[in-house]
Amino acid sequence: MSIQSQELISMAISAQKTRQFYAAYPENPKAYPEEANQQGLEAFQKTLNQDFTELAENAHSQRVGSEISPYMQVGLGVRYASYSAEDLIKYAQEAAPAWKKTTADQRAAVLVDSLNRISTRFFEIAYATMHTTGQSFVMSFQASGPHANDRALEVVSLAWEELSRFATELDWIKPMGKFDLKIRKTFQAIPRGIGLVIGCSTFPTWNTVPGLYANLMAGNPVIVKPHPKAILPIAIVVAEIQKALQAAGLPANLVQLAPDTLENPITKQLAEHPAVKCIDYTGGSAFGDYIEELKGKTTFTEKAGVNSVILDSVKDADPVFGNIAFSACLYSGQMCTAPQNIFVPENGINTANGPLTFEEVVERISGAVKGLVENPKMGPFTLGAIQNEMTVNRVDAAKKGARVALDSIPVVHPEFPDARMKSPVVMVTEAANTTLWKQECFGPALVVVKTKSNAESLELAAKAAEELGAITCLCYSTDHSFATEVAEQMNAAFTPVSFNFTGAAFVNQHAAFSDFHVTGGNPSGNAGFTNPEYVNKRFVWVGNRYAE
Amino acid sequence: MSIQSQELISMAISAQKTRQFYAAYPENPKAYPEEANQQGLEAFQKTLNQDFTELAENAHSQRVGSEISPYMQVGLGVRYASYSAEDLIKYAQEAAPAWKKTTADQRAAVLVDSLNRISTRFFEIAYATMHTTGQSFVMSFQASGPHANDRALEVVSLAWEELSRFATELDWIKPMGKFDLKIRKTFQAIPRGIGLVIGCSTFPTWNTVPGLYANLMAGNPVIVKPHPKAILPIAIVVAEIQKALQAAGLPANLVQLAPDTLENPITKQLAEHPAVKCIDYTGGSAFGDYIEELKGKTTFTEKAGVNSVILDSVKDADPVFGNIAFSACLYSGQMCTAPQNIFVPENGINTANGPLTFEEVVERISGAVKGLVENPKMGPFTLGAIQNEMTVNRVDAAKKGARVALDSIPVVHPEFPDARMKSPVVMVTEAANTTLWKQECFGPALVVVKTKSNAESLELAAKAAEELGAITCLCYSTDHSFATEVAEQMNAAFTPVSFNFTGAAFVNQHAAFSDFHVTGGNPSGNAGFTNPEYVNKRFVWVGNRYAE
Repeated sequence: MSIQSQELISMAISAQKTRQFYAAYPENPKAYPEEANQQGLEAFQKTLNQDFTELAENAHSQRVGSEISPYMQVGLGVRYASYSAEDLIKYAQEAAPAWKKTTADQRAAVLVDSLNRISTRFFEIAYATMHTTGQSFVMSFQASGPHANDRALEVVSLAWEELSRFATELDWIKPMGKFDLKIRKTFQAIPRGIGLVIGCSTFPTWNTVPGLYANLMAGNPVIVKPHPKAILPIAIVVAEIQKALQAAGLPANLVQLAPDTLENPITKQLAEHPAVKCIDYTGGSAFGDYIEELKGKTTFTEKAGVNSVILDSVKDADPVFGNIAFSACLYSGQMCTAPQNIFVPENGINTANGPLTFEEVVERISGAVKGLVENPKMGPFTLGAIQNEMTVNRVDAAKKGARVALDSIPVVHPEFPDARMKSPVVMVTEAANTTLWKQECFGPALVVVKTKSNAESLELAAKAAEELGAITCLCYSTDHSFATEVAEQMNAAFTPVSFNFTGAAFVNQHAAFSDFHVTGGNPSGNAGFTNPEYVNKRFVWVGNRYAE
Repeated sequence: MSIQSQELISMAISAQKTRQFYAAYPENPKAYPEEANQQGLEAFQKTLNQDFTELAENAHSQRVGSEISPYMQVGLGVRYASYSAEDLIKYAQEAAPAWKKTTADQRAAVLVDSLNRISTRFFEIAYATMHTTGQSFVMSFQASGPHANDRALEVVSLAWEELSRFATELDWIKPMGKFDLKIRKTFQAIPRGIGLVIGCSTFPTWNTVPGLYANLMAGNPVIVKPHPKAILPIAIVVAEIQKALQAAGLPANLVQLAPDTLENPITKQLAEHPAVKCIDYTGGSAFGDYIEELKGKTTFTEKAGVNSVILDSVKDADPVFGNIAFSACLYSGQMCTAPQNIFVPENGINTANGPLTFEEVVERISGAVKGLVENPKMGPFTLGAIQNEMTVNRVDAAKKGARVALDSIPVVHPEFPDARMKSPVVMVTEAANTTLWKQECFGPALVVVKTKSNAESLELAAKAAEELGAITCLCYSTDHSFATEVAEQMNAAFTPVSFNFTGAAFVNQHAAFSDFHVTGGNPSGNAGFTNPEYVNKRFVWVGNRYAE
């Protein structure tokens, strides 16, 4: 392991244990060379309407590519070499033995090298992310660049720690009375086999690199199956990992990109192949359930969930409604961590400046959303664009089942007049109307659910988390004993709670080296970034014994 | 945590990391007070033909008990309070909150206390084990007493380490340029829910306590469902854990015994209950597969497998055949670690004193088994008794499909003339006769399989491990490069290999704090004592965040 990677990894291990703030890759674009932004934009523009040839290519018959910019509503025209599932498996198997022989130190060194290479392309990856996912530039930069790299480094460090935790070679000496029994023992973490990592259309690198790097640390070759509509960001990442592998004299095919199309998907062929042993998946619940139920596979899923806000009592109302509005508007609610249902008691809530009725709460939430959305300096850049037309339709359909307190407001992006935009709709409903709020309405939608009391709010939120899954919960309460109850009940449904967030603290944000992302305990997914299970289920400890 | 438990656990953690020999509970009966053996025998005798009333009893309508001594062929007459699945779940749920609140330190202290209490009853547990499983006295003492306690302590220490690995409370401070974002965070390992531990008839405590203690450390209440024919040993263990819990002011129902009968089994009702979240199982593959496929459960299984001996070349032949014979005779092959198939090339094997033909190898193996079995000081005490009549029938049926080189030899136990005994049958077959050797023949049976070469021996052994599972593999080879190949191929099938074992080193023995038992990577089971996964899949990390 090179000095630099050694140092990075030991800092990462320490951050992860103490769960303190740590950023190996600064999230502020200004921390990078001044010309980097312009160069990144140009590099992105050069890839458009071209064959993407940066990947180590194997023999292939065709190219695919159907990405469309949500900002420009035009195709990117980038074409990627495509392969059959059988060929991808074959290449992975050919590459595997060389990687299996490497030590945890060697793997970590190669992978940290890859992260450093990727960091030189953060701006290009940001533009690629922006024009496939619809994220704003800042979010694209942060989520797909430094935050993704930090999550990957977190996985590398945790896996390094796991792989190094037992003695690998020793003399075991057992006193037998008259003599000693002496046995030489060796212990090795054997990679499980090929890892398949299935990406999503909204966070093409952030949600992909943890499984990708965890598999590589475990010694598993990886096939990355991106979402057909968000390939370019992860294609650049895969290319840089391949370069780091090759620079270390290792086969590029240890990580392969497996692009496909919506018309001819190859995900199931890959997932069901007996040589594929580990599967990471981010996306809808139906396909996620299918993945989890495949026999003989170790799976890591992040699926749908319904995130709640429990509104009980607040000190100062404005910062609270502002915070909720921002969390709902950020990337137009297209985040697995975005709040959806806001449970408010029918008698309203208390504030330091007197009570607010239920209707006043609804008005204030709507007003906060409206204020943010209509602010020309904030609105378009917070909302970003809608990745998929279906998200617009989903929200429009939901509206029919509720009273609409705030409808979507037309927003025009100053730079991209054709951007597909839709500001959050604020709906209001009775708790009994479960068809509306007891399902994920992924996208720009908030549902204010009227409850009998804060106790019912908690009961409904906890039950929804248990039955439908939840990745986050936001609670506002100045009542210590109620807050304690919320923590207990929601945690029992394996859902983390953020209390009284205002200002720059947002429920949507899960920081590497500190916040676990998805607990793995409720239906929103069976795995979490990055707990020990996330890495140590990808390899198997095997010991051999040698008599003297 | 008391000083003693603190010390024990830190020694256990260190042993586990270095994988050196460590025994918290001496395996030699002579290390215990002189009168202990006699007292243990008397205590055992006193329980016979009685209601077993040592457990904290809840309201119940009936008692069950149908254990039969394989040594005496008479019923033990011990009757245990029996409960419906619903009642067991209810009691577990009532007890759960008090345990959930305890810290890892408190749990470890209570559980170490329980192990110390159990250690005062090792002799009684030994007689209970002997007269339910058919194990010899020495094996009963070691396996159900000190070795089981060591495995339990190993689990406690690993779980303690896992539960202590992250900061539990901290201020997370992120520099934001003009200000610092400060968030208070707490992290907690939330217990998954009720643990069900399903025991087997041959190792009623050794195979049960790891899952039992792992669940308790994770904070899960446990229901122990023993095999109907081997209840007493684990009933004593459960009673002692209950006493340790009660001494600490905790509910006894955190661990409950759930005895049933072969006629009215309750295992499926318990396993399928939605409140049961973790299931440990030791036993046959068909039921194990059913357990693994249950939805929404975290499962830990040890199922059937086919263990191989790869015989290539040896220095001195006699100690090798003696070692194989002992491993096959020990508890009449009723160990999941016992060798079954011995792959021998048709051209025979090399020894330092010249070659041995295939037929000579068969003769020498048969001779070694015969010599051991017929030695009146060794035979009966190595063989023990056959737990289940079906084991005798299984071996008799297998014999019809093979050439029998050595048939079972009548052995009479000097103390127990009615003991159900059967010495190992040595069968010989061609590799093509897969119906004989490509299935587990649990019990006293060895199959010498004739192969074309040592390469074919390895190929068949590796394939069998991959397809049918294997817990151990024994290899004899003086050829370093072949041995390396064996390690590589068998390890790739997630099977550990023991090389050139003679003398006091036996493939059957897996030592706590050093050998993993079952890798979890092949069909012989999906979990291993005791790797990190074994404990950290039983709880879920959840973090809460508090804004300032």
